[in-house]
Amino acid sequence: LSVEAHVVPGIGEVTSGDDLGAVIGEALALAPCGPPAEGDVVVTAQKIVSKAEGMMVDLATIDPSPEAQRLAAEGGRDPRHVQVVLDEAAEVLRPGPWAIICETRHGFVCANAGVDASNVPGSDRVLLLPRDPDGSARRLRAALCARFGLDRLAVVVTDSFGRAWRTGQCDVAIGCAGLSAVWDERGRADREGRPLTATEIAVADEIAAAADLARSGKAGGEPVILIRGCGKFVLKSDGAGAAALVRERSRDMFR
Amino acid sequence: LSVEAHVVPGIGEVTSGDDLGAVIGEALALAPCGPPAEGDVVVTAQKIVSKAEGMMVDLATIDPSPEAQRLAAEGGRDPRHVQVVLDEAAEVLRPGPWAIICETRHGFVCANAGVDASNVPGSDRVLLLPRDPDGSARRLRAALCARFGLDRLAVVVTDSFGRAWRTGQCDVAIGCAGLSAVWDERGRADREGRPLTATEIAVADEIAAAADLARSGKAGGEPVILIRGCGKFVLKSDGAGAAALVRERSRDMFR
Repeated sequence: LSVEAHVVPGIGEVTSGDDLGAVIGEALALAPCGPPAEGDVVVTAQKIVSKAEGMMVDLATIDPSPEAQRLAAEGGRDPRHVQVVLDEAAEVLRPGPWAIICETRHGFVCANAGVDASNVPGSDRVLLLPRDPDGSARRLRAALCARFGLDRLAVVVTDSFGRAWRTGQCDVAIGCAGLSAVWDERGRADREGRPLTATEIAVADEIAAAADLARSGKAGGEPVILIRGCGKFVLKSDGAGAAALVRERSRDMFR
Repeated sequence: LSVEAHVVPGIGEVTSGDDLGAVIGEALALAPCGPPAEGDVVVTAQKIVSKAEGMMVDLATIDPSPEAQRLAAEGGRDPRHVQVVLDEAAEVLRPGPWAIICETRHGFVCANAGVDASNVPGSDRVLLLPRDPDGSARRLRAALCARFGLDRLAVVVTDSFGRAWRTGQCDVAIGCAGLSAVWDERGRADREGRPLTATEIAVADEIAAAADLARSGKAGGEPVILIRGCGKFVLKSDGAGAAALVRERSRDMFR
């Protein structure tokens, strides 16, 4: 009846081509909270996944379109950065002055298509989201299950997303493996015996949020968090991934 | 470097007029995780707050308008329930077939203006959100600080909200006291020394999500959760409350 989120220290700067499973496995093996056990969830910030997968873009290689130049001028932004956002966007929902709200190729709706310049070494470089965050999570899960001899270990890849009507950002799951990303309680009965309606819990997003709370801050260099106590949501298989968290277009009322 | 969420057992059925501070205080005093300490956060589901505050509505007293009857017919719903939703809504954003997305009087955008029929004893009754959830949190905080002799204890009142573009619901804070609901890292530097932009963490919502993870399910009767390890966000004063989590209309791009 309790859940714990532990920072896993010792993850250094990650660069393109690094074996992230080995890097995270090494840190987990030495973690003060002990190594992972059956039912645990390893949460990793998207940033180190993208860095390991070589998703850095050098802005010197980008030739901004007139559209990117116009949007950049409105927000006082770098037109090359805006061009990368437009390149990553499957659809622009709102080209706002503070942020360009886009749907990414994965179907996520977020600011700037997830393109980020914070905590990226060197100037004039930006970092894209992983091409296939569920695939990244599956590969990490396989590596960590093998290393620690486990078959019920979940992996969640997170990013910080804003919300349409609430201030601030919450971490959410953009990829996962070995987890019921959405826990469906529809069809179960409430304590009065009436069916619970509209009760699907976005478990992977709640895990992402809990993990973020354990960090000392966005600049703290603590990308990996181990979550204990959520074993009921952990699977022996990869599961449907965070793709299950994307609302289908036919049920989208706000586009 | 870790955060813990503990279920506080022993909260029975709460009814109108109950002294919720005493009920929660009694349960906390006997909690297996030990009584609250400085820097802890007591999270309570909105449902028991609303019940104690007498926010139950008997549908037999409701005379549905033609508008409520029309909307109810589209979704196969009880027109009296829909009328209560319309009564609680400051604005209807989307009168969808699955849910009526509204802005509540508090400024929250959520399904059905927070009006709920699950886990409400007796048929033909629905439960409204507290009139002033930040006020409810402040009163609970005062009662619990006095009982346990603490001055840095936070209280968060939560509800489960859907999201525009993601499936499932996450618990969020609709009221809080003694907490920095939004933690502002703007102006701080990233690890490369560049200013972090757009980094405001919705701490109260992440705490609500972490608390929900510790529950065994929506029907489990576990409204109260104690969170340890988030002391950096806990204040000696009531603070601005969850009102700080409502995005101002001038920055709302999706209405």
